[in-house]
Amino acid sequence: METPNNYVFIHGKNISHNTLAGSPVGPHMSIDKLFPALLECFGIILCGYIAGRADMITESQAKGLGNFVSKFALPALLFKNMVVLDFGDVIWAFLWSVLVAKVTVFVLVCVLTLMVASPDNRYSKAGLYAIFATQSNDFALGYPIVDALYRSTYPEYLQYIYLVAPVSLMLLNPIGFALCEVQRWRQESHLQHNSLGILGIVVLQVLKNPIVFMVIVGIISHFALGEQIPSVLSEFIDGLANSFGGAALFYLGLTMVGQLRKLTRDTGVTLILLITAKLLVMPLVCKDMVDILDVGVNSTSPNHTSLSNFAFVYGVFPTAPSVAIYAGHYNMELEVVTSGMVISTFLSAPIMYVSAWLLTIPLMDPSPLVAELENVSFNISIISLIGLVWTIAVMLLSRKFNQLPHLFVLNLFLAQVS
Amino acid sequence: METPNNYVFIHGKNISHNTLAGSPVGPHMSIDKLFPALLECFGIILCGYIAGRADMITESQAKGLGNFVSKFALPALLFKNMVVLDFGDVIWAFLWSVLVAKVTVFVLVCVLTLMVASPDNRYSKAGLYAIFATQSNDFALGYPIVDALYRSTYPEYLQYIYLVAPVSLMLLNPIGFALCEVQRWRQESHLQHNSLGILGIVVLQVLKNPIVFMVIVGIISHFALGEQIPSVLSEFIDGLANSFGGAALFYLGLTMVGQLRKLTRDTGVTLILLITAKLLVMPLVCKDMVDILDVGVNSTSPNHTSLSNFAFVYGVFPTAPSVAIYAGHYNMELEVVTSGMVISTFLSAPIMYVSAWLLTIPLMDPSPLVAELENVSFNISIISLIGLVWTIAVMLLSRKFNQLPHLFVLNLFLAQVS
Repeated sequence: METPNNYVFIHGKNISHNTLAGSPVGPHMSIDKLFPALLECFGIILCGYIAGRADMITESQAKGLGNFVSKFALPALLFKNMVVLDFGDVIWAFLWSVLVAKVTVFVLVCVLTLMVASPDNRYSKAGLYAIFATQSNDFALGYPIVDALYRSTYPEYLQYIYLVAPVSLMLLNPIGFALCEVQRWRQESHLQHNSLGILGIVVLQVLKNPIVFMVIVGIISHFALGEQIPSVLSEFIDGLANSFGGAALFYLGLTMVGQLRKLTRDTGVTLILLITAKLLVMPLVCKDMVDILDVGVNSTSPNHTSLSNFAFVYGVFPTAPSVAIYAGHYNMELEVVTSGMVISTFLSAPIMYVSAWLLTIPLMDPSPLVAELENVSFNISIISLIGLVWTIAVMLLSRKFNQLPHLFVLNLFLAQVS
Repeated sequence: METPNNYVFIHGKNISHNTLAGSPVGPHMSIDKLFPALLECFGIILCGYIAGRADMITESQAKGLGNFVSKFALPALLFKNMVVLDFGDVIWAFLWSVLVAKVTVFVLVCVLTLMVASPDNRYSKAGLYAIFATQSNDFALGYPIVDALYRSTYPEYLQYIYLVAPVSLMLLNPIGFALCEVQRWRQESHLQHNSLGILGIVVLQVLKNPIVFMVIVGIISHFALGEQIPSVLSEFIDGLANSFGGAALFYLGLTMVGQLRKLTRDTGVTLILLITAKLLVMPLVCKDMVDILDVGVNSTSPNHTSLSNFAFVYGVFPTAPSVAIYAGHYNMELEVVTSGMVISTFLSAPIMYVSAWLLTIPLMDPSPLVAELENVSFNISIISLIGLVWTIAVMLLSRKFNQLPHLFVLNLFLAQVS
């Protein structure tokens, strides 16, 4: 599985898929390792949640663990990986694709929020929601999952995570922060902020982020140290870096305690839209961008399908808990962002599992697959028919069908049944 | 280096040493890996200390990290290692030797303290000091050092740590706890404790210790699961266990903040005696016990010298921070135990480094070694002569020599010079 170059990319998406479907190569991802990886991540998150719920670790004590994770373990991990990063292996078209996808989703969320939101807080909403939809939990949750999926097939994909994360942090987050600062400036109009002041605050905020800071330090050291960590230091850095995974997931669980209680009915729609943007629009745009850009720039690449699948998986990664920290810093939209973070984290697990399984379908043997798919679609249609009949019955019995929106829905449902 | 059996143990210690000195085998320990390992441990401890000193993590926040380390990461590490432990590899004579050595030091410290201490708190002092002198920081500090020294030569030594630690916790600590309970019972004479009540409290205290608890659970699972962790769970347990090392050392550094300030002049002598017992008596007794017991029971063992050296290194491990937790629980002798823990941790690093280097000397080529030793001893004698002259000059000039104790010391120094 170490050399997956035993098939050649021909041209365009469909041909490649068909070729692969009949070819004897195994799946691009190690799907059987995904379940233990998801269990690892969500098991440790659950441990943290239980520890927080049972008051073994109070909210203030949790900050100690959070500081250790974000200020020591994560910088060590980033430094180590930036120094040993092999820039020769990187397919830059992939990075461009993910970047374009992130910018697209960012602008989309930003513009929609600015159009819809009430004028008194629309800038902060636009900024924070756009950050919410684009910044993913790359290191604590993303890395072990990519590791499980691609360690044995495409180990070079692991380092893309380290390259994509800072780009998002350095290009998109500043725009979001700037929008929040504009909001604050409008609310506190007695403060004489000018646009230069906002710029300064934003740049400072970005550089204070330990991820951005350590990636810059790491890239400088990459060239200064000649792509390897001095042997005297390597044990020290490994010691800190190895402790990141478990501690970060545990801390993620701790931060989730009591967040869903903050959820109100008003924020429901916003939340659903945001989570859709993060977990559905983002992965699809990522995948399509790779399909478009990778063909244009780098059409001789042998592992194009696998790359676009990886972009999809990358897109599904849930929102990072640091977004909740930003929301807390500006004291704006805290309840939407925190509960959204929790919900997107738990929704991402089944989406990732099902989508990773679906993405390997084109690589399976076609004839049993067709039978399997017909079987599955028959089952799904029966379940949805029962669901539809049940819903229509409830609507008719509760006599809400004569209200206007419910009438539309009822007609839609009846059309579905037939 | 994987098969160190290319020399045969002959009989007795000296012959074996001489044989090895001329033999072409490398040293038993990878001494060049010790320095990075020590740097790793003390570097991370220093990071924790700096974080605590700079108030990045307050004392109450540190408890969150401590709870994560002791209640989640360490149990996972112990469970994993007890399940995969290979009992067939274990040289039981080594475990007996270390146990006898620990009991010896425990009884020695206990009896001496009971004889010397004032009657109003001698039981608690005896109990806590004896625990202090025998319980070592096996997992956070000991494991990475043994790993660095023996990973490539005797990897089976690593699992001895997991076997020795619970023995000490289950046999010796209860006696210490019982002494503390006796003290508490005498102080609060209105409470009608009987000896059965003390026994119950002590057993509960021991079982509540996460190390003891998880080792018992781990041994049961070892036989129930057939010596391997189910693949579904292994990622989850690895994730938590891997985060132990860095987080535990960082927490150790955090607990050290402000401890040395508690040190008073009265506790100085006690402290020096205790640290001598832990860092000097303990390793020597450990080494001698292996020399005695391993020859008697297991004289065909091929790696006897290496085993007695390992016992010495094991003895030097500093006192565990959990002893400070016990002292806090009984609210007795807190300042001696905490500052002793800090001092013994920092003293253990040079002692370990120098002693590991000295232990490899018998394995070196003899002729350059003799020249080297003469050179070193000449240098040391010059330095000590200068030091002696300086001290005598200071004593004479400060006119303290006519007081009785100083007069004795002066005569001793003059005798040294000649």
